[in-house]
This record gives sequence, C-alpha cells and structure tokens, in this order.
Amino acid sequence: MNVRGKDYRAVWMHRRDVVVIDQRLLPHRFAILRLHDHRATARAIQNMTIRGAGTIGATAAYGLAQACLEAARAPARRSFSSYVRRAYATLLRTRPTAADLKHALDRVLAAIEAAADVPSAIAAALAAAGRIADEYEERGRQIAEVGLPLVPRGARVLTHCNAGWLALVDWGSATAPIYLAHRRGRKPFVWVDETRPRNQGAGLTCWELLQEGVPHAVIADNAGGHFMRRGLVDLCIVGADRIAANGDVANKIGTYQKAVVAHANGIPFYVAAPTSTIDLRCRTGDAIPIEERDADEVHYVAGMTARGQSARVRVTPRGAVAANPAFDVTPARYITGIITERGIFKPAEIRRCLSGA
Amino acid sequence: MNVRGKDYRAVWMHRRDVVVIDQRLLPHRFAILRLHDHRATARAIQNMTIRGAGTIGATAAYGLAQACLEAARAPARRSFSSYVRRAYATLLRTRPTAADLKHALDRVLAAIEAAADVPSAIAAALAAAGRIADEYEERGRQIAEVGLPLVPRGARVLTHCNAGWLALVDWGSATAPIYLAHRRGRKPFVWVDETRPRNQGAGLTCWELLQEGVPHAVIADNAGGHFMRRGLVDLCIVGADRIAANGDVANKIGTYQKAVVAHANGIPFYVAAPTSTIDLRCRTGDAIPIEERDADEVHYVAGMTARGQSARVRVTPRGAVAANPAFDVTPARYITGIITERGIFKPAEIRRCLSGA
Repeated sequence: MNVRGKDYRAVWMHRRDVVVIDQRLLPHRFAILRLHDHRATARAIQNMTIRGAGTIGATAAYGLAQACLEAARAPARRSFSSYVRRAYATLLRTRPTAADLKHALDRVLAAIEAAADVPSAIAAALAAAGRIADEYEERGRQIAEVGLPLVPRGARVLTHCNAGWLALVDWGSATAPIYLAHRRGRKPFVWVDETRPRNQGAGLTCWELLQEGVPHAVIADNAGGHFMRRGLVDLCIVGADRIAANGDVANKIGTYQKAVVAHANGIPFYVAAPTSTIDLRCRTGDAIPIEERDADEVHYVAGMTARGQSARVRVTPRGAVAANPAFDVTPARYITGIITERGIFKPAEIRRCLSGA
Repeated sequence: MNVRGKDYRAVWMHRRDVVVIDQRLLPHRFAILRLHDHRATARAIQNMTIRGAGTIGATAAYGLAQACLEAARAPARRSFSSYVRRAYATLLRTRPTAADLKHALDRVLAAIEAAADVPSAIAAALAAAGRIADEYEERGRQIAEVGLPLVPRGARVLTHCNAGWLALVDWGSATAPIYLAHRRGRKPFVWVDETRPRNQGAGLTCWELLQEGVPHAVIADNAGGHFMRRGLVDLCIVGADRIAANGDVANKIGTYQKAVVAHANGIPFYVAAPTSTIDLRCRTGDAIPIEERDADEVHYVAGMTARGQSARVRVTPRGAVAANPAFDVTPARYITGIITERGIFKPAEIRRCLSGA
C-alpha cells in the first residue's frame, strides 16, 4: 500500500537480505531495515520489528530461504541440510502463538527437501518464499472483495490491534474490506482501539488509515463498549492469530472482551483472516498456546517525546507487579462470521472452508 | 492511610489553604500541594490534581469554606453572599459527572445560608466541610466492614480505575473491603486494570496497594476478560461516580465492558460507593451526563523517564483523530450488588437504601 506516495509491502527480499519496514518505529518514524542473515530475521520476528500473522509468515519464509543462501557456503549436502533444519527451528520458536509461522516454514522446507541438489534447493526456497508473500497480498485483496458487502455506505467499524497491511504483507485482513469500501467511495469510519500494551492500534492501524485518508478516531481500549451501547458502532472487524477447528479465535489480548460486549449489544462481530490462519490440529481455542510477554510492556509505554525522540515512560510505581498475556481466545459463539479469501463462514463451519479448497 | 509510615488523607485544610496530595505526580513522586484560594482549588479539581468522587466532594466543600474566608474581607453582607455564590458556581462547573461535588457544595452552602452573620457563616462552612471529609472517611470504613464478607480467604479481585483512599479521602470504596481483608490476614490478590487513558489503576491503585503491601498484578485494560475466562477472577469491585435511581452506574470508562464480560462468565460484579453517590434525580443511567475530555489524553501517555523525570510520550501519529469519553454507564442488570455504608443492595433496590436512612 501507499507510504508517502510510494507502494510498499511490509516485507520483501533484496539479494541476501530480508528487508522490512521497522514497525517498532511507527507511527513516528518510517524506516526500512535490512536483515543480513536468518538469525537477524528471527530476532526481528521475536522482538516485533515486524508483527502480524501474515507478515510473520512471509518474513519467516524469506528467513528460511536466506538460511539456504547462507548454508550454500558449506561444501557438503549433509551440512546444508542440518544448517537449514537448525534455521527452521530458530525461526519457528520466535512466536509460539502464530499459526502462519509454522505453515510458511513448512512450505519452504518441503520445497527445499524436494530439490535434487543445493542450487535447486536454494532456488526452490526463494521461489516458495516469494510465492508465500504474493499469496498473502492476493488473500488480502480477496478478503477485501469478500468482506466489502459487510461495509455499507457510512458504516462505523470498530477494529482492534493491527490486522492491516503491515500485518499481512499488503492490504491486510480486518482493514482490507474497509480500504476497498473507502476506495469505492462508501465513506466508512473506523473506531481504532489503542490496543495496549503495545498500542498497535494507536500506532500502526491509525498510521495506515492516515496514509489512506480513511476517517477514524483512536479510542482507549476501555471506550469501545460505551460507543457500542450508544449505537455508534455498526460492526466490528478484527484479525486472528490462530483459528481452531471449532471456530474459536486466538487474537490480540482484548479481542475477547470486545466480542462479548458486541454480542451483548447485538452488533455483528467479524474475524477477517486468510485460511492459513486456521489450525485444525487445535480442536478448540483452549488448545492454542497463549504467549505471556515481558511485564515491562505493561510497566512502560513507548512513544515520541515533544522533542521528537523515541522514548518510553514508566506508568507503574517501582516494585509493582504486572501480568501480560499477549493473546486471548474468543469462543466461536461470539463470532458472527469469519471473512476469508474463500468467502464468509460461520465459525462452526470453518472446517468446510478448508475442505472446499 | 499510610504513606511512608505516616497517616494521610487525600485532602485537608490548613489555615486558609486547601491542602492535597498531588495525584498527577503519583506514583512516581509524592508531593503535597497547598491551594491558596478557592479558584486554585477549583482548578485542582478541574485539572485532576485530585480526583475520585469523595475526594472531589471534600475538596469542593473545603474550597467553598475557603471562599468564605476570602469573602470575609469584603465589608457588606451582600457582597459576602454574592462572592460565595460565585465561588459555588465556579466549584460546581469543574466536573460535570460527579454527583458528590454538588451534594457537598449544597451542604456547605446550606450551612452558610443558615448562619446569622458573616463570622458564624465562616465557622459553619468550615465545620460543614470538615464533617463532610470525616464522613467520607467513616463511610469508607463502613464500606470495608459491609463488603468484607464478599472477600473470602485468597480471593482474587479485579478492580478498575482508582476507587481507593486517594479517591474517597481515606479507605476508599472499591479498595476498602480489600484493605480490611488484607489486614485481617485473608491474603486477597488484586488484578489492577491499568485504566487508560489516565492510568489511575497503574498509577494510583497500584501505588496504594504497594503502600499497604497487598499482592497485585497490573494488567492492560484488555486482559481482564482473559483472566475471567480462565477462572482467575473471583469477583470484581469497582467504584462509582454516580448511581441512578434504577441502579445504573456511571463510572470510569471501561467499567461497562468489564461488567458485561464478568456477567458472561458468571463472576459477581460489585459497585462500592457511599450513598451520596446515588442521584435519584437521574431516573436511569442515560440521564447522567458523560464528560468528553481532551483528546490529548488518548494521544499521549504520561509517566516517568529512565532519568526519573516526568514526561509524556505521544502514541498516535500527528494528524490522528481521537475520542475520549471519560465515563460510561453500566446498566443495573450487570451489577450483582452495590456496597454502601448502609449495607449491600441489589441495584433495583437502591432507592430503598436511601429511604431507610
């Protein structure tokens, strides 16, 4: 999508480097970061230089292709394989909750293992990673088309966290139907949950919407329910980090609360996600591991000072204890529908979405 | 309550000054602020140097008594009256949602108007304001006793914002039963909602709990639902800014969401408040005015830098729009009970609580 009049994706490859938009600096600074080896790429996933299910998947895929380029320096086929497998493990353990991470890595690894020799393994890995990134963009575009009828003229949409193009290589998932509605002149308005502790709504979604010129208001995570009760929210659209076989959805912490409150107010609550987010091995949401992140994310808030410098301020007193679950699980019964690149499905029918492929 | 081994209230009077703990500096700095005239006192209420229903009421009452001392410099009875009435109006318009503000000001004004001359009016005003502050403390103590049976050994209590002693002169409302349970050795644990945009949970409630040695964890406002669903919250206790005749409750933005999610999880949701918070002129919660505060509270987060300096950082990009309702209304049906100094009442029976006085 557009950044200062130029078209960008959230991640791409240039020679031996994986190149990303440094999302930790947004919305205050727009910077491109070159990651010179797969370990740097793994760190960028782990420390959330990039984040979002699709962008994590594409970045990990590029990272494994990058590892193949590194391993090619080794003479024997055997050490190439073991290097690649170690890189696979390194990349896999960066974010335990993300389904797309493993999905993407497995596809690249399969391409590598099907190749006859090292040069063709490298070519296959690069091609597979490129295809994965292209497919995320294409899925975003399809989700936009599929979800468009849900966003009528003047619709007021609440979203949580960033399920935007930064999170899905391009277009986004939750934002995709909104962007398309905006481009079609339907004048949607977006309530943007701040999304503490990392403020991806205030920082990233808001920045994306500004770049696209979509009217919006950032609100404290506490405020959405108030606007729902006042009749100022027509629908909610959020993303997903993992969808279980029964339609339960793991997504950014706070999603569950919004879904329950939307349900209590009779407001449709949609999850938008590519089908790669579905993990049939998780029978229900309770089987999805929930990442507990550093308590400092709660103790501190990062932002920009009046002098234009990045800084973080502490909001709790010294000695305070904090807890920081990064995701929660929204039971299927609170979800009106799941918007995928293949259509809109009732949560209970999400298996059908895969079998119809 | 105790601060560094010394007993404090949130507000008191010293000669002609109203003296307060500057709550804007907490939890990082503990400072006492002397307010030299009623206009300074009004500003302190308006800019949230002090906040919380009871502390607002007591501070306004002291402010009106302070205005009497100022007015006494005027020679004629007529100008004394008009000065006091202007001060009343100045103090009243500082915070439109707070019921206790008007309640306290009306009591002091009645005492002034019943007095035969200026000197006895001043004495009556000072006595009335002092009584109001004493009564808040006493009500906090009574709420602690009334609510104690709801906090069994090892109870895990979720609270929102600061309905602690800083907010109610002493003891607090939501915190009062927790403090008493702690002192009785019941080992309660408190989940403390951060409470964006002003972070009164992370800053004030957490600071109070640390001073009292009560085990706790600060959590993002997004996380409470997750812990409820996981069975880690036994009950919720929050405060109230105003209670309507039908038992609807206006309280800090985010209260409504927590109440709905608690209800969905079968978790008791209590409101603790002195009966002065009840406003029978508001038939339902929808009659309670909701204050819309400066959008900058959403754009910025205030805290302490690594160098120990107060600072605020911007979390949204320049050009972003934000909305900032300060309160929401929780319908009576989501409230298990209202803990007052006169007992625990079902929301629908809250009128009975006043008529039984």
